Amino acid sequence: MATRSDGRSSDAPRKILIETGTQRFPEGSLIYRSGKTAVLIAASIEDSVPPWMKGKGRGWVTAEYEMHPRSNPERQRRSRSRGNLDGRSSEIQRLIARALRAAVDLGALGERMITVDCDVLDADGGTRTASITGGFVALAMALEHLRVRGLVGPGVVRREVAAISVGLVGDKHLVDLCYEEDSAAAVDLNVVATASAEVVEVQGTAEGAPVPKADFDRLLELGLGAIPALVARQREALSACGVELSRLMA
Amino acid sequence: MATRSDGRSSDAPRKILIETGTQRFPEGSLIYRSGKTAVLIAASIEDSVPPWMKGKGRGWVTAEYEMHPRSNPERQRRSRSRGNLDGRSSEIQRLIARALRAAVDLGALGERMITVDCDVLDADGGTRTASITGGFVALAMALEHLRVRGLVGPGVVRREVAAISVGLVGDKHLVDLCYEEDSAAAVDLNVVATASAEVVEVQGTAEGAPVPKADFDRLLELGLGAIPALVARQREALSACGVELSRLMA
Amino acid sequence: MATRSDGRSSDAPRKILIETGTQRFPEGSLIYRSGKTAVLIAASIEDSVPPWMKGKGRGWVTAEYEMHPRSNPERQRRSRSRGNLDGRSSEIQRLIARALRAAVDLGALGERMITVDCDVLDADGGTRTASITGGFVALAMALEHLRVRGLVGPGVVRREVAAISVGLVGDKHLVDLCYEEDSAAAVDLNVVATASAEVVEVQGTAEGAPVPKADFDRLLELGLGAIPALVARQREALSACGVELSRLMA
Amino acid sequence: MATRSDGRSSDAPRKILIETGTQRFPEGSLIYRSGKTAVLIAASIEDSVPPWMKGKGRGWVTAEYEMHPRSNPERQRRSRSRGNLDGRSSEIQRLIARALRAAVDLGALGERMITVDCDVLDADGGTRTASITGGFVALAMALEHLRVRGLVGPGVVRREVAAISVGLVGDKHLVDLCYEEDSAAAVDLNVVATASAEVVEVQGTAEGAPVPKADFDRLLELGLGAIPALVARQREALSACGVELSRLMA
Amino acid sequence: MATRSDGRSSDAPRKILIETGTQRFPEGSLIYRSGKTAVLIAASIEDSVPPWMKGKGRGWVTAEYEMHPRSNPERQRRSRSRGNLDGRSSEIQRLIARALRAAVDLGALGERMITVDCDVLDADGGTRTASITGGFVALAMALEHLRVRGLVGPGVVRREVAAISVGLVGDKHLVDLCYEEDSAAAVDLNVVATASAEVVEVQGTAEGAPVPKADFDRLLELGLGAIPALVARQREALSACGVELSRLMA
Amino acid sequence: MATRSDGRSSDAPRKILIETGTQRFPEGSLIYRSGKTAVLIAASIEDSVPPWMKGKGRGWVTAEYEMHPRSNPERQRRSRSRGNLDGRSSEIQRLIARALRAAVDLGALGERMITVDCDVLDADGGTRTASITGGFVALAMALEHLRVRGLVGPGVVRREVAAISVGLVGDKHLVDLCYEEDSAAAVDLNVVATASAEVVEVQGTAEGAPVPKADFDRLLELGLGAIPALVARQREALSACGVELSRLMA
Repeated sequence: MATRSDGRSSDAPRKILIETGTQRFPEGSLIYRSGKTAVLIAASIEDSVPPWMKGKGRGWVTAEYEMHPRSNPERQRRSRSRGNLDGRSSEIQRLIARALRAAVDLGALGERMITVDCDVLDADGGTRTASITGGFVALAMALEHLRVRGLVGPGVVRREVAAISVGLVGDKHLVDLCYEEDSAAAVDLNVVATASAEVVEVQGTAEGAPVPKADFDRLLELGLGAIPALVARQREALSACGVELSRLMA
Repeated sequence: MATRSDGRSSDAPRKILIETGTQRFPEGSLIYRSGKTAVLIAASIEDSVPPWMKGKGRGWVTAEYEMHPRSNPERQRRSRSRGNLDGRSSEIQRLIARALRAAVDLGALGERMITVDCDVLDADGGTRTASITGGFVALAMALEHLRVRGLVGPGVVRREVAAISVGLVGDKHLVDLCYEEDSAAAVDLNVVATASAEVVEVQGTAEGAPVPKADFDRLLELGLGAIPALVARQREALSACGVELSRLMA
Repeated sequence: MATRSDGRSSDAPRKILIETGTQRFPEGSLIYRSGKTAVLIAASIEDSVPPWMKGKGRGWVTAEYEMHPRSNPERQRRSRSRGNLDGRSSEIQRLIARALRAAVDLGALGERMITVDCDVLDADGGTRTASITGGFVALAMALEHLRVRGLVGPGVVRREVAAISVGLVGDKHLVDLCYEEDSAAAVDLNVVATASAEVVEVQGTAEGAPVPKADFDRLLELGLGAIPALVARQREALSACGVELSRLMA
Repeated sequence: MATRSDGRSSDAPRKILIETGTQRFPEGSLIYRSGKTAVLIAASIEDSVPPWMKGKGRGWVTAEYEMHPRSNPERQRRSRSRGNLDGRSSEIQRLIARALRAAVDLGALGERMITVDCDVLDADGGTRTASITGGFVALAMALEHLRVRGLVGPGVVRREVAAISVGLVGDKHLVDLCYEEDSAAAVDLNVVATASAEVVEVQGTAEGAPVPKADFDRLLELGLGAIPALVARQREALSACGVELSRLMA
Repeated sequence: MATRSDGRSSDAPRKILIETGTQRFPEGSLIYRSGKTAVLIAASIEDSVPPWMKGKGRGWVTAEYEMHPRSNPERQRRSRSRGNLDGRSSEIQRLIARALRAAVDLGALGERMITVDCDVLDADGGTRTASITGGFVALAMALEHLRVRGLVGPGVVRREVAAISVGLVGDKHLVDLCYEEDSAAAVDLNVVATASAEVVEVQGTAEGAPVPKADFDRLLELGLGAIPALVARQREALSACGVELSRLMA
Repeated sequence: MATRSDGRSSDAPRKILIETGTQRFPEGSLIYRSGKTAVLIAASIEDSVPPWMKGKGRGWVTAEYEMHPRSNPERQRRSRSRGNLDGRSSEIQRLIARALRAAVDLGALGERMITVDCDVLDADGGTRTASITGGFVALAMALEHLRVRGLVGPGVVRREVAAISVGLVGDKHLVDLCYEEDSAAAVDLNVVATASAEVVEVQGTAEGAPVPKADFDRLLELGLGAIPALVARQREALSACGVELSRLMA
């Protein structure tokens, strides 16, 4: 396979580094690094659900995504100064939340809400997939916190979920695009999937010319193929801080 | 194929009705109806581009999407009262804009902006795909307006673009879901594609359980299969108001 | 009497067209056209009243008025982008609401709220009077909806209400000004009145020089004179969709 | 004529008190009191006009109206806390501005803007008419300020403008309603007019039952009849601080 | 001691004028003038506390501070137009509220809230200290209002609080800086203290070069020395409207 | 001296940890930890100044302060969701900015702006003083970045600035209060000063009872006494990443 600017082969994801315990209060806390991309992630448990969910005996998982004003080469204004969350961040945090809800049995969670805050410290492509893959780790840490207090049991995690980007750059199908590659990509596909390569969510845009279904298939396959390695990294990071997923799954 | 609540076969889209000329001022104007879903669409030309695009000799296509407060069984507050566009609408209007930009040669458009306003009058599922399919018609009407004034030439339309939803309801793969089907769907996939079935954008979410890639493939195929009939409807509607796409395409 | 640019005599209102049933969900729905002015109107019933009215056994009627971004020759930003309703729209929607409340016995309505949404599709002068005259039709449709379910009885409509603009252009007293005439008018008067020519609300501004009371009187008389024909058109439109006002009035 | 709760006859306005010079910086500054109603008014000159008026050689007069949070028996939140100007205040400040523009030759003013700030300190009915009548005094003070610096000449004031409310309470036609009367009024009419009783603006609402044109005529006549006394009070207050209107009028 | 531009000696505060009873509704109301600085102050009682304080049997005192748009040589936009309270006003109103809470026994106040509105009419330096010193007077008037109705007893006022600015201009230590002096000051210190010269709050900024502790001490001493005269003025103003502080203090 | 809950003596600041290089893009980047308090700090250079400073040949230093939603035991809403910066954060970021401007020769900086972003990750008291002390380090890193590119010379740093809190808890004068101590403090004083113990800013509030000047003096002395050790820590951290302050100072 062809070599890329950072020496990776086309199907190789970037190096992942997960440092847990960054913050004191969140029930799950970490910095997730994928290459030069870094996201500060915090999962927080609250003992109530939004008004429209009350009394149904089910929980909720939501996410907030925000770029640090200097996560990019040029400093951006904070969203609070704009008085409004920009469309891109809004779209992304909805994706993260859907992906993480797919991992959880909301009935088994009970009437509580877990909010996963994703603050991008450094952006070099793949911030939404990093937020999902790292977000699952923080979420599992928070659920373990509930488990040891006897508030949830096995089965609260329905499945492990991770995400990766794939893209078509020139005639090459590449996995885990950095910013430079992403900018040059004709097609950019974000794949959210389970350890067994089942699809949770797919978002793909042909920024340049539309692509034949064959190319799309090839990209999806490539993305699904990268998921098991990500799930392995999630398990390692969780084990390292004493969380065994098997105790959270049925 | 199985029959649905409204008598359609599983691969049959709903009946489409395109009434053009609803409003006086927009260069392209129509009400697009797909079954019980109705969207008021207006394409407006402005002779300038956003500040960040000035001086590059290229144009821009953008979209705004809004639910009429009574497009649903319960009246909703207007977005202006909330002082903020909700996340869902924001996500949708970004999708519509990307899809329509894929149809246009922005260089050939010159330094002008076309805004496609999509106001949902009645919602019964598929409002985003209706906005894209109908939005293409309004966009072509606006471009024809520029063509007859000699401001753009053939090639300004790069390709015809249409969109459809597909979903997995029970074990059935269905095309063009109405609200009732959409609520029951395990997977919901929106497919934006060209007449020749090339993929422009794909957004699919497994709301319930994740799905094997095979199911995903089957759904994508089904969606792509429905596009040519939509494109034929777009052409008819345009012809009926004197717009021949062949004069806008290279 | 003198002839105007569109051939009307000075006391002739523009041609009115009322198409009911535009939307599926609102209890009253129509597009009201007066000449080139067009307003999409929807009356929605809700089974509760604002907090400050609770427990008083009385209902409420309110209105929202908004210009479609392309209801004018130049596209305007949506009010949601400005994060604020502009002063003119705010002033107009308060007028519409007061006018429509004058038509209803709020005690007989019971603790429910009817919101009349007025979305201007095409603006050629007289959008506020069109909203009131058309708004009464939508309101009556909604009240009929309650009547057939046995929730309100005769007398809930206290009186028929309609509105028209009159103005002084040069030395001519004209009824129902189009945009071009309105721009040239020295005085612009909006008259809201009942079928029996009793005054509900009057708003008149001498944009240029102040006018003697005699001119003001002449204009008011002219406006009141045009109301009965409008009320007749309202009755026709209601009859055509099966609503007999006599069953709603005492 | 009948006597009212405060001993006035039905055609008698409340006692007016105009204290000028309340603030140091505004070119025109005063507290206007009409009975128990009190408004702090400041006219400020700026040497530029809004962007949309630039280069036309004409000036502009605008107004801002705000209730002090404790101008009523119950403390209200400040408009800044609501992040929005309420509809009523917006409607009122547009009326004040139109009324004051009718008093000024905007061409003779040159490219400057005068903003008349009206802050209601105590509300007992008639705050909008107090703002107009007092606003004219502050405006004239500011114009005198320009005149003595040679920046405007005679004719910049086109006419004296004042305003009064009239209403139908029971079967009595009353002038200058206090809050208690206003609450009980079937019809409430605000009349803006010139010293020679020509109409500048009329806003009348039949809150209860609609009224015959004859009643409306009677009210308008009553209102116009009260204007000359108000204009006399304006002249006195201006003279007392050295402003002779004759030097500002043609 | 050296003489200043307005003839004062360096330790002399400006002349204070307190006119009570400006507004009808606030339980405490006055205009506080210190030299050319003028602040309209209103203390309003409400019979409930913010949600987070409910059920604790304690009251709350808060403050709002706002510049009139023409309290400065150039007219400023109203805070409502900016949709946000600026940082400086926010900082100041928090200071005022803390200072006034130090004067009150919140337990003895019971579950009520007193809001002290401070609207700056003319700004010539020292607006925050004027708001505190005058705010105490308005607050005491409001508490007296409660006392005569038997709702609070002696001890509700814990101590008299007043405030003054001091600064280092050139090598001179000056008390109560006007705007011109404030602009030239190397250090600007606001001192909030009690009649017995105990410190409630101190805020000092060395705008230019940092200052030795000795200078800081000298300024603080100077400020504390000016407090008793201010407290005497507060007592006089209160006595003049029938409020004897001794009846409110333990 | 007495021992505290964490074993410190009353005049001992908490242990400081400064990790530089957290983010890739900011010219100065670090996490500053003081005991359990942690702040992510980023200094960003922009090559322009705010509009009101243009053309004066001087630079500007500003700061933004924000609590991470889970920096406290209970998760808080993001400021963007409230559509407004809360008063406390606004007050704090103004203090940070003033303190850091005192450290810089704005003329020597030239027409550039440095923004110091302070995002509190963990709050245990002293977040504003941590932001100032750590902010100086980030600021110096950014200035060194300019120096090595020849854009600023020695003298751009006028003085080293650090900050510490002191307070009166019971009868003990304590330095560097943790949250628990801060909550119990009768007086809370924030001291911003230079290495040579000159005062830059002092903010002190007697939350409970006012304090005699003697206590205030003692606290200020205690605070000033702690500054040199903080400055030593700043120098070490800067040296460790190759920044010698002597090259930035005159």
